[in-house]
Amino acid sequence: MSGAVLLEISGSLATVTLSHPGKFNAMSRVMWRQLRTVFEALQQRRDVRCVRVRGKGGHFCAGGDISEYAGFRFDAASLRDFHENDVWGGLQAMLDCDVPIVAQIEGHCMGAGIEIASCCDIRLAADNARFGAPIAKLGFPMAPREAALVMRAVGELTAREMLLSAAVLDAAEMKQRGFLNQVLAADVLHVAVQDCLQRIGQLAPQAARLNKASFRALAHAPPAQEAINIIATAYDYAASGEHREGIAAFMEKRPPAFCA
Amino acid sequence: MSGAVLLEISGSLATVTLSHPGKFNAMSRVMWRQLRTVFEALQQRRDVRCVRVRGKGGHFCAGGDISEYAGFRFDAASLRDFHENDVWGGLQAMLDCDVPIVAQIEGHCMGAGIEIASCCDIRLAADNARFGAPIAKLGFPMAPREAALVMRAVGELTAREMLLSAAVLDAAEMKQRGFLNQVLAADVLHVAVQDCLQRIGQLAPQAARLNKASFRALAHAPPAQEAINIIATAYDYAASGEHREGIAAFMEKRPPAFCA
Amino acid sequence: MSGAVLLEISGSLATVTLSHPGKFNAMSRVMWRQLRTVFEALQQRRDVRCVRVRGKGGHFCAGGDISEYAGFRFDAASLRDFHENDVWGGLQAMLDCDVPIVAQIEGHCMGAGIEIASCCDIRLAADNARFGAPIAKLGFPMAPREAALVMRAVGELTAREMLLSAAVLDAAEMKQRGFLNQVLAADVLHVAVQDCLQRIGQLAPQAARLNKASFRALAHAPPAQEAINIIATAYDYAASGEHREGIAAFMEKRPPAFCA
Repeated sequence: MSGAVLLEISGSLATVTLSHPGKFNAMSRVMWRQLRTVFEALQQRRDVRCVRVRGKGGHFCAGGDISEYAGFRFDAASLRDFHENDVWGGLQAMLDCDVPIVAQIEGHCMGAGIEIASCCDIRLAADNARFGAPIAKLGFPMAPREAALVMRAVGELTAREMLLSAAVLDAAEMKQRGFLNQVLAADVLHVAVQDCLQRIGQLAPQAARLNKASFRALAHAPPAQEAINIIATAYDYAASGEHREGIAAFMEKRPPAFCA
Repeated sequence: MSGAVLLEISGSLATVTLSHPGKFNAMSRVMWRQLRTVFEALQQRRDVRCVRVRGKGGHFCAGGDISEYAGFRFDAASLRDFHENDVWGGLQAMLDCDVPIVAQIEGHCMGAGIEIASCCDIRLAADNARFGAPIAKLGFPMAPREAALVMRAVGELTAREMLLSAAVLDAAEMKQRGFLNQVLAADVLHVAVQDCLQRIGQLAPQAARLNKASFRALAHAPPAQEAINIIATAYDYAASGEHREGIAAFMEKRPPAFCA
Repeated sequence: MSGAVLLEISGSLATVTLSHPGKFNAMSRVMWRQLRTVFEALQQRRDVRCVRVRGKGGHFCAGGDISEYAGFRFDAASLRDFHENDVWGGLQAMLDCDVPIVAQIEGHCMGAGIEIASCCDIRLAADNARFGAPIAKLGFPMAPREAALVMRAVGELTAREMLLSAAVLDAAEMKQRGFLNQVLAADVLHVAVQDCLQRIGQLAPQAARLNKASFRALAHAPPAQEAINIIATAYDYAASGEHREGIAAFMEKRPPAFCA
């Protein structure tokens, strides 16, 4: 009903599948919590050498599950709980994962999808993949930690374009902008990912864990006071008319009417 | 006489035009102060949803107005005042702007031009645009805050190439290096910019302001002591022979003779 | 026998040549120490305006000299001494160099080679150049300071791909990913480098030194506590079976057998 994040382990390879049929694998709250549980479980498995993350049915992930939004987004406390605990809990578990993660990206990779892809070490995409975070159409900004994560992965210029102009970019463009390692025809993506997983599986596992720990430490620039401050008020927009209008318009399948 | 920075507001769209006829819109001191005034005024307007920045007459901005340099550059205190107050005052006002800024770049985008473009959120350029900061020909370095701004926008490799080898790069190369969102034929640039502005104008304005606040907070890594220290002595070169020779040679239309 | 780092000065141009015949200029401990000595000497020369770094005989540098590894890599203290003193001593002397450094890259540019290239301001490469750091095949990670240096120069995505999947990328790809300023046919690389050196030689030398000081200060984000902590335990893997197996397999010309 509300989707699932599935884990399969075969030998030393784990596959994490985002699955939400009929919604292009949009992430529900339950799925964010499962994402955390899955990666916390993987972290306990010393036999796993590599993790693949993919979506089910020809798409990676189309974003958040908007049908749930009216239930928690219009109150600052519950909105903060959603972003800081459910969403960030899942993403942080991915970032804390000590083994290499390879993203296999087809079709929609939007919003939550681009955040999940940003937590992967290596990203291979089909030429039909499309990337963006057009949530300003829905009347809300990206949460600060998530914006920092995406900005680091897609680059500042692309992050601003995606968030400020609701731009959607194709795989070739995202390769050129440095977000993707390779772009492949959709029917051979699976083979390229398998090759990559196999190559990683033959390398030294302790070295991979140590390299990932270095990358993680290097990413931890101490947050500026400005960055800490902004999280304190980041969710005060919850009850605003603009936020309500964006989500209401989406649900009612009409264009939103925003005024300053 | 010494140029102007013009502001027009039409509905929710503001257009800022750099205008210095006969000098490819080179920035005079007056223009830097006007740039600040214009963006401080925009910041008070809650009705403005998007800002376009462009140059007049087929060029964005060719740099600083060198004809003024002999009047203030050869004394460390007045040089510091110019860079830290006039120039940085204008650039900081742009960085503090809470609404999306789109750069429309044709022809020369050099020195001051690349600094102003670096303060924009989205950058569209004509295929005839050319980018660089060949001020080492004039015998002086880029001021530290400005170097940090440009390095962040063009990337460290390109910033070093521009400043250390006086490289000038074309629009296609700057797109490939991640500084530009799109490159277009000069005669359709205007249309593409209009499309972008219109798209932004339909999005949620509060969300844009919150996203820009996040990006601004994320950019504020706390300055290292090394970065603070360097500003203290950054202008001591003011009276040096090299600095005088570079500017004198330019004024006298002869090649400079630098010796170590 | 164990290679050499050679310095020639001709007028205001210095050329540093990595030379280890029969080993594609792989860096021995002696060469790392010579790299430091050479750049410390250059730093004392006020007459040098530009430095070129190249390899001898059609290759830049294939990595470290693996034949020495059994002598010091399997003890944490001597491994730390190697990385923090010999290797980092050489690289830090390059980073501290106040004049522009241009890399002329042909053939293998792997491991130590990519670290040395990362310390250069401008990088020109032949189209036959190949880049990577496939040390996970040898059973060990990149040292944290070196990983930070390479990540900054090649970008985080590429650094993760090189270290976690042992990817080797060609010059065209590394140009597209922002590591190279230009890629040229191998037979004209030398000419392009000469042009670049000559252009730099005509620019203001004090301005170059001041610009390099700014870039250096800007690169010094204060290290997060996480980054400091990681160096404390970074070499504890020295005596591990995985580390021994990787190097033993290379020496014995057989594939390594790693298990988690």
